[in-house]
Amino acid sequence: MKIRSIETFDVRFPTSRTLAGSDAMHPDPDYSAAYAVVRVDDAAAPSGHGLAFTIGRGNEIVVAAIAALSPLVVGRDLDAIFADMGRFSRSVTQDGQLRWIGPEKGVIHLAAAAILNALWDLRAKLAGMPLWRLLASMTPEQIVSLIDFRYLTDALTPAEALAILRERAAGRAARIEQLSSDGLAAYVTSAGWMGYSDETVVERCADALARGFTRFKMKVGGPAELDVARARLVRSRIGRDRILMMDANQIWDVPEAIERMRLLAEFDPYWIEEPTSPDDVLGHQAIARAIAPIRVATGEMAQNRVIFKQLLQAGAIGAAQIDACRLGGVNEVLAVLLLAAKFDVPVCPHAGGVGLCEYVQHLAAFDQIAVAPGLEGRFTEYADHLHEHFVHPVVVEGGAYRLPTAAGYGVEMRAASLRAHLFPGGDAWR
Amino acid sequence: MKIRSIETFDVRFPTSRTLAGSDAMHPDPDYSAAYAVVRVDDAAAPSGHGLAFTIGRGNEIVVAAIAALSPLVVGRDLDAIFADMGRFSRSVTQDGQLRWIGPEKGVIHLAAAAILNALWDLRAKLAGMPLWRLLASMTPEQIVSLIDFRYLTDALTPAEALAILRERAAGRAARIEQLSSDGLAAYVTSAGWMGYSDETVVERCADALARGFTRFKMKVGGPAELDVARARLVRSRIGRDRILMMDANQIWDVPEAIERMRLLAEFDPYWIEEPTSPDDVLGHQAIARAIAPIRVATGEMAQNRVIFKQLLQAGAIGAAQIDACRLGGVNEVLAVLLLAAKFDVPVCPHAGGVGLCEYVQHLAAFDQIAVAPGLEGRFTEYADHLHEHFVHPVVVEGGAYRLPTAAGYGVEMRAASLRAHLFPGGDAWR
Repeated sequence: MKIRSIETFDVRFPTSRTLAGSDAMHPDPDYSAAYAVVRVDDAAAPSGHGLAFTIGRGNEIVVAAIAALSPLVVGRDLDAIFADMGRFSRSVTQDGQLRWIGPEKGVIHLAAAAILNALWDLRAKLAGMPLWRLLASMTPEQIVSLIDFRYLTDALTPAEALAILRERAAGRAARIEQLSSDGLAAYVTSAGWMGYSDETVVERCADALARGFTRFKMKVGGPAELDVARARLVRSRIGRDRILMMDANQIWDVPEAIERMRLLAEFDPYWIEEPTSPDDVLGHQAIARAIAPIRVATGEMAQNRVIFKQLLQAGAIGAAQIDACRLGGVNEVLAVLLLAAKFDVPVCPHAGGVGLCEYVQHLAAFDQIAVAPGLEGRFTEYADHLHEHFVHPVVVEGGAYRLPTAAGYGVEMRAASLRAHLFPGGDAWR
Repeated sequence: MKIRSIETFDVRFPTSRTLAGSDAMHPDPDYSAAYAVVRVDDAAAPSGHGLAFTIGRGNEIVVAAIAALSPLVVGRDLDAIFADMGRFSRSVTQDGQLRWIGPEKGVIHLAAAAILNALWDLRAKLAGMPLWRLLASMTPEQIVSLIDFRYLTDALTPAEALAILRERAAGRAARIEQLSSDGLAAYVTSAGWMGYSDETVVERCADALARGFTRFKMKVGGPAELDVARARLVRSRIGRDRILMMDANQIWDVPEAIERMRLLAEFDPYWIEEPTSPDDVLGHQAIARAIAPIRVATGEMAQNRVIFKQLLQAGAIGAAQIDACRLGGVNEVLAVLLLAAKFDVPVCPHAGGVGLCEYVQHLAAFDQIAVAPGLEGRFTEYADHLHEHFVHPVVVEGGAYRLPTAAGYGVEMRAASLRAHLFPGGDAWR
């Protein structure tokens, strides 16, 4: 089979109308997807679906970047690609001209992720397995061969990665059994959006508690007294014993972050997420040292494995929030899972948006089955919107993701949803 | 006056046909520009010209990003923009939806630079001054007001920036006089492209020596023995006393960079440029410590002021290679000039490509006139191609840039050149 085409779609949901997703830096996001469908030259074969999440304007730029990368993929032999996905992944992210406008960051890297994830979706569908199970069926050697170790060897060598995977290999079956029974521990974000009224927050907390959640995240980064009042409100609803994460979405400078977290410490935050620029490794390190034992978390905008490597080397983070499309696809995610294991920092995937929950459940499952030293402190983000647009929406019960069972990587959208939310022509935008 | 339109052009030069510009990571660049023309609603007024340099494929993505940013600019009042360029610059780089696909990096930041630089070009033309002189005519307070200090205050506060500028203010006139006489110290890159034959390198060295250059840069990052042979060849031509920089264009991992530079140390390299990933602050720090007194230089792909801040905080670089369009325009460059002055690291702008020499001569001049503590170690890159396409090409004599005298920021292309190199329709591409 050869790859016949990559079709792109600019899909947007008008979420800014309800302020769902609002935070300190992004007051009015329209959750969107630069969506790619990979088709092969066998009409009986499935198609591969991938997306890069954005928040509205600029989605068309990522779509244009997918189109620019497509000539590197279309016409290629599928077996040859699958025989060496590591090399293939690198060929997409390291084109001698296109890399200039990254390299491996921002628009062009989001586009690479959409394409590479679509190919992983296709591979998993052809194998008849959910992505996490396909990965968990690979040997340590096969997994290591998927990873581009360029720029990593000062922190993690292929031999070290292999040793980590081999050490965990014997326990895979037992962990699959455990996770199949218990699900993947989740936390809920959608009780605490910045733009919500106090009444809405109270309702959302009650609802999440009723659904079994024990871990909650709220947005901070507004005026100090409002942050304190909101934290007091949320704590009063969820109680002292449940976990409360805070998320500043990059709004502070380093000294300000330290000062503001000292004010909020009385509410016992589990972590502060994105306290400052996502590019500021040394800034996160300084904050982490100043506010311990409150953890620092970041990653949804950590542009690639090189930033994660440094965050881990510097002891700057207590949770690695991998993103399924900010990183350049499954292959680069595997690199970060192994880096995090090496430095013994829990992976807590970023999700929400549109399609991110559907994606990251596979990554968290594989991490916990085959890479992580244990399950402690590994929580996957959950937000309760837009799942109905997917062919196989996530199932979250009792505060945990059920392990997905459908073949693929999870982000195939329902055809009617795709059509209705095409921008600007779809019904949702007329 | 209001801004009436931003017109974009996809301009590409088929430089890959001669291997000019080839290096270890970019074997066949086609020097290109995502080009923007800002027009106002007064037919008698000049237009502002800006560009973002790329190396071919993907140039159309940056053009699309300029178009996506344009609604933030078109229709706005020019006096209001010029009255607070700091705030305006931030409004372009911090749009609540568009920032997601950066933030402040890669495609969207290149596009912001093209637009903001075009506005600076317009402002300088309206003032009847070259950009460097317009900046040098501003007070320290005015200059500080141009800078977005977000994410910088742990390293540089507005008060510290003001103090630096005030301390140098008295000497501005004398330094203008000195630079008007001596020019801006330059080094030449175009003797040592990776893809050139030994014969071509010998010819180019002889030519550059005859033209008065005393500082030379060669590409490294090929097989070790070829790097050594090439370094020996170049040294044999330029002698022991002239400065030889080396440039690996990101090809090595950290341990490899250290090992390879130990092999090349006998050729007395002045610096090693881009020894590894441009994102790897801690990696550059480790290399700098291991290979001192050889300096480490980087910056042409340092995505924004936050990366420069960390490189400087970490003592990772001995030369700050600002780029006029990788950073988000003049405003962000000013931030980096002041950071570099605070940490006492010389600014040595990246140039070459197409239009970069025309741009950076203004930035180097302003740095040396108003920001830097002295002129020592401040060398501006020069490559000798594509200048003929500009209305006011750089003038380089005796190994130094003559201070530009034409009003504007220097990258207005000749209309015929623009037309001939439009991609894919121009004569050069038929």
